[in-house]
Amino acid sequence: MADDGSRLWLKYDLIKDQKQKLSYQKYTKFISISANHPTLQKTAEELQMGFAGLLGTKTNIVSNNSQAGGVVLEVSTNQALTNDLANDGFAIFAQKGNLVISSKSEAGVLYGAFELLRRIQTGQSLNENIVSSPKIKIRMLNHWDNANGTVERGYAGSSIWKWNELPFRIDPRYIAYARANASLGINATSINNVNASSRFLTAEYLEKIKAVADVLRPYGIKVFISVNFRSPRTLGGLKTSDPLDPEVRKWWNEKTKEIHQYIPDFGGYLVKANSEGEPGPQDYGRTHADGANMLAEAMKPFSGIVIWRAFVYNADPNGDRFKEAYEQFKPLDGKFDEKVIVQVKNGPIDFMPREPFHPMFGNFPNTKLGIEFQITQEYLGQSTHLTYLAPMFKECLDTDTYSKGKGSTVAKVIDGSLYNNPNSLIAGVANTGSDANWCGHPFNQANWYAFGRLAWDYTLSSEKIANEWIGMTLTNDEKAKIQINEIMQKSLPTYISYTYPLGLHHMMGEGHHYGPEPWLTKAARPDWTSIYYHKADSVGLGFDRTGKLSNAIKLYSKEINETWGNPEKCDLNYLLWFHHIAWNKKLSTGNTLWEELCYRYYNGVVEVQKLQKDWLKLQPYIDTETFASVNARLKTQEKESIWWRDACVLYFKDFSKMPIPNSLTPPNRSLEEVKKIVEIYHLR
Amino acid sequence: MADDGSRLWLKYDLIKDQKQKLSYQKYTKFISISANHPTLQKTAEELQMGFAGLLGTKTNIVSNNSQAGGVVLEVSTNQALTNDLANDGFAIFAQKGNLVISSKSEAGVLYGAFELLRRIQTGQSLNENIVSSPKIKIRMLNHWDNANGTVERGYAGSSIWKWNELPFRIDPRYIAYARANASLGINATSINNVNASSRFLTAEYLEKIKAVADVLRPYGIKVFISVNFRSPRTLGGLKTSDPLDPEVRKWWNEKTKEIHQYIPDFGGYLVKANSEGEPGPQDYGRTHADGANMLAEAMKPFSGIVIWRAFVYNADPNGDRFKEAYEQFKPLDGKFDEKVIVQVKNGPIDFMPREPFHPMFGNFPNTKLGIEFQITQEYLGQSTHLTYLAPMFKECLDTDTYSKGKGSTVAKVIDGSLYNNPNSLIAGVANTGSDANWCGHPFNQANWYAFGRLAWDYTLSSEKIANEWIGMTLTNDEKAKIQINEIMQKSLPTYISYTYPLGLHHMMGEGHHYGPEPWLTKAARPDWTSIYYHKADSVGLGFDRTGKLSNAIKLYSKEINETWGNPEKCDLNYLLWFHHIAWNKKLSTGNTLWEELCYRYYNGVVEVQKLQKDWLKLQPYIDTETFASVNARLKTQEKESIWWRDACVLYFKDFSKMPIPNSLTPPNRSLEEVKKIVEIYHLR
Repeated sequence: MADDGSRLWLKYDLIKDQKQKLSYQKYTKFISISANHPTLQKTAEELQMGFAGLLGTKTNIVSNNSQAGGVVLEVSTNQALTNDLANDGFAIFAQKGNLVISSKSEAGVLYGAFELLRRIQTGQSLNENIVSSPKIKIRMLNHWDNANGTVERGYAGSSIWKWNELPFRIDPRYIAYARANASLGINATSINNVNASSRFLTAEYLEKIKAVADVLRPYGIKVFISVNFRSPRTLGGLKTSDPLDPEVRKWWNEKTKEIHQYIPDFGGYLVKANSEGEPGPQDYGRTHADGANMLAEAMKPFSGIVIWRAFVYNADPNGDRFKEAYEQFKPLDGKFDEKVIVQVKNGPIDFMPREPFHPMFGNFPNTKLGIEFQITQEYLGQSTHLTYLAPMFKECLDTDTYSKGKGSTVAKVIDGSLYNNPNSLIAGVANTGSDANWCGHPFNQANWYAFGRLAWDYTLSSEKIANEWIGMTLTNDEKAKIQINEIMQKSLPTYISYTYPLGLHHMMGEGHHYGPEPWLTKAARPDWTSIYYHKADSVGLGFDRTGKLSNAIKLYSKEINETWGNPEKCDLNYLLWFHHIAWNKKLSTGNTLWEELCYRYYNGVVEVQKLQKDWLKLQPYIDTETFASVNARLKTQEKESIWWRDACVLYFKDFSKMPIPNSLTPPNRSLEEVKKIVEIYHLR
Repeated sequence: MADDGSRLWLKYDLIKDQKQKLSYQKYTKFISISANHPTLQKTAEELQMGFAGLLGTKTNIVSNNSQAGGVVLEVSTNQALTNDLANDGFAIFAQKGNLVISSKSEAGVLYGAFELLRRIQTGQSLNENIVSSPKIKIRMLNHWDNANGTVERGYAGSSIWKWNELPFRIDPRYIAYARANASLGINATSINNVNASSRFLTAEYLEKIKAVADVLRPYGIKVFISVNFRSPRTLGGLKTSDPLDPEVRKWWNEKTKEIHQYIPDFGGYLVKANSEGEPGPQDYGRTHADGANMLAEAMKPFSGIVIWRAFVYNADPNGDRFKEAYEQFKPLDGKFDEKVIVQVKNGPIDFMPREPFHPMFGNFPNTKLGIEFQITQEYLGQSTHLTYLAPMFKECLDTDTYSKGKGSTVAKVIDGSLYNNPNSLIAGVANTGSDANWCGHPFNQANWYAFGRLAWDYTLSSEKIANEWIGMTLTNDEKAKIQINEIMQKSLPTYISYTYPLGLHHMMGEGHHYGPEPWLTKAARPDWTSIYYHKADSVGLGFDRTGKLSNAIKLYSKEINETWGNPEKCDLNYLLWFHHIAWNKKLSTGNTLWEELCYRYYNGVVEVQKLQKDWLKLQPYIDTETFASVNARLKTQEKESIWWRDACVLYFKDFSKMPIPNSLTPPNRSLEEVKKIVEIYHLR
């Protein structure tokens, strides 16, 4: 049977290495649970299923067993044991011939069980004690799934939520989804698009969401709802949705109570307000804080929170979108209720393949900030490019903001340690869909996996995470694992090389964001064009964000200004994010900007061709269907990498007025011809 | 393992009855093919796979075997044998200890093999000779799949075609799709929405479509493309798409040639023109015949054809949409090129649950007419109502038009026998999507199956088709089969009873067509409202299509006028299609119209509740996942049937001013409350 990818990384196929299998079987006489709790029950069932598949054993679930040779699941009050553990942390250790998984919480036990299974799946020894705690409290997926079943920026079929079938039908995939997330420690999910329909706040839909919440609860996952700020008008029949209006406040108070009748442990609200046409408090002359605090007040009697997105920007052709969220929110620092988390995208524009970290991080000491990454590959090759995103997530988290001196990394802002935020949050925009393999490109699964693992512990290396995922998903052959890991590590720099080298950004096809469109000069908003960002002219290329133009660089610390702010010292990967560089300017590589740009675009394609060859060698180790799928997608990636290369080199050539370097073969088509191909994808 | 439905009816699970299995094994020594032809190769592989699964045998494929004990696949020129067979017909008979599958064509052999497998799957004897020929030449699916991956009126996920992955990646589901269609004799498919994107005519997309065509070809399936009539402007840069313009004609000639370079056996074009905002020849003062004939001319050097849809109507608040296609096309009868087939929906409005047959059938002696059914359940409960459509398809096909005297059924118009049309066509709008089980509701698969079987032979009974499908898909337990068949046969009358009793039509939720909205009085077009159709007033209910108002009834023969045209004689199921009946008018049932209406709405709900109970009894015979899925959907169906009942009874009560009959419990909510629920589904 070919593998359709539907099991994700939770493949419990029989281990072939007899010695290994034997070593694991020593704890499979029973699985003992200390209390009758749904989460412990699911934990035991997961282990039972895992052991049956991986080890071929039939292991019974018992309560409070005193024998040896099994796994003991316990929620422990033993302080010596659990003192060092965060609430959802766990310890795994051998004791009296059993393997004990211990935690302060049931969810922690569940996470420990998945850690155990992961170690068995990837052939690791169980001889050492394991202690692990999550660094961030709320580890969340954001679904951009619409009520009508489509997914905004989804590349793997339609929504996994079948609203018309709910509440009565529980699609078996809801359970698979819960297991996959729990296996990573993801403990929160917002189930609908931030461009939110009011539908989700009606009793009709709350019944449906309750059914989903009931499935996810035993797996430790709390449900959030994205809300439409205009709901008091749309649903409540009020004349306004002004957050300072008493009737509006009352409506939200009652609605929040009503939600808790369906979902007592409701996670809270996620809000996109006054952003890209969505309604919000500014419609009534109020601030983001006014809006968020009103919802926080409604949430006061409950454990839930309010997540308020900072992704706001105005359509000013002479402005710099880079600065806008910062500037709109800066006066509100300290004004948000303690139940509010402001969710900030990793970078200041919009999930570009490489962005400098968002300047809000480190500069809002009195606001709880969460971070939002995009797992779905809107700008990163969608379902046809192999791009492993852990390096991107890490590059952002590891960057030093210097806000409280050296070592003030973005991660430390996010995990709450730098500004003492107990409600720490990391969110990822999900890449899940109804396709059998959930994520489109088989390697896109690795990004869901990597996001979850880094949400748990951002100090894990990109290589270690990839290695785990490969072992669980593709193969445990040691040589093949190394080769696949290399492919994954090279994939992001390769992608950036043929799309956005040297700090270029936002030049994709209008609307659908597919393919290159650096020539885009007109759009519904000036900041949705490409020329707004690359600013190519006869002199050079890049957005001058130093004092000469927008001065956005000044939002960062002086240490950062000394590097990114100085064209001589700026990392080339970020150069055109901050500087307008002359075409003939010599870079640190010894090449002029124009030459370096050409070399990078061309080299990106060469790297894709290498990826193709590297993948071919792996055929003996990979399931046939997965192998063929990746192989075919790499062909598409090559074709589209040549689109990008030809489009950008030919387009910028008209500005640089310089020839393509001699060592490179010029494109065998004109800019007009490339444009025509890209335009096809704009036809309805 | 639970069954996710992905194998459709081609479930080759091991037969448990040992005696039966033994009887089939006598032909499993080998599968012999007479020639090296891709279709024969696929046929042999299908039998090999079927035998392996059903009978547990390992059967080799050989060429021209002379031994006994196998299956012999042969394309025969023996006239004695094939004289009675249509081109794709087949004969299956025992000869020299082998089972021979013989046909004039490779596709016919393939269809014979699937007939053999079907008989084995459903436990039938192989002792009698089988001879079977299709009654209609082109047996086609129409996909309303968009380039962006959505499906217009799709209720089972996104499109099965992954355009961004093509041409390089061949999704394994394309092959599964081809096998499923071939198993029914479906031999044509149009791959994109009739609201067509010009994209599909670009070289970029033709390469993709070629890849699909290459997969489908060995399974005897020809690919058609839905075209956008404005393509010469959009793609060709011409100033017009006027079908009489020489440049436009040249563009289509060249484009048609180009397509054939990719797909030499291209099926042809499907065109929706001057319909619901789509471009067409009338934009340039030309007729449908001008447009169709231009494309036919382009197709002249090739075997392909042009299918031109007759689904056209104007937005006239005082008109009758019922008559419009007829009236627009009548002057063109005899003016279409011989390569043109005019594709007419089964009824004059739009795929209503019960419609009188389209009056064009029988009245266009000089035009090749094909019929278009809708398999996807746009108006028939989408993915949450169990409605088996074979009775609807048959009701239409079996109705007598009397156009050439008694016995001039719609079927005989369509199969070409009445007006000597060798290019006979039956098309069904597909209900396929990317969901694991292809069709949403497990029973929706039966409608794909039934359409295909009736396209092959419309004389098959609805019961026989259901029985085959049940045996192949759900269970071969004889008692259970009878009970499931009863459920299926009752399902359509039940649905009609709680939605559109007595000939009501077109009262569904605006736009999404989900749920009831009889109160819809304003829409983008008057003929998209509900009041346009039901015409409820203080006097009565129904659309008077006799001489008093639109006189649409006169489009039918005098025999039909004597029944449908006379309110005293009209079948109650069609009554309000043709007559405005007084609320207090006594019907043949002894009830007044108002009483009968109420009884039918209420009885529909009772019948759903019976279906629920009947289904519960079947649990022992049905795979767990399928059982649970249907069970849950029946709960949704019950809830929604009560929506329909309450919405319609409460709404019409305001017109009738009569009480709900005493024996019925009045709805426990107000009309306003029902409206509010329905309105939720209009929120974005």
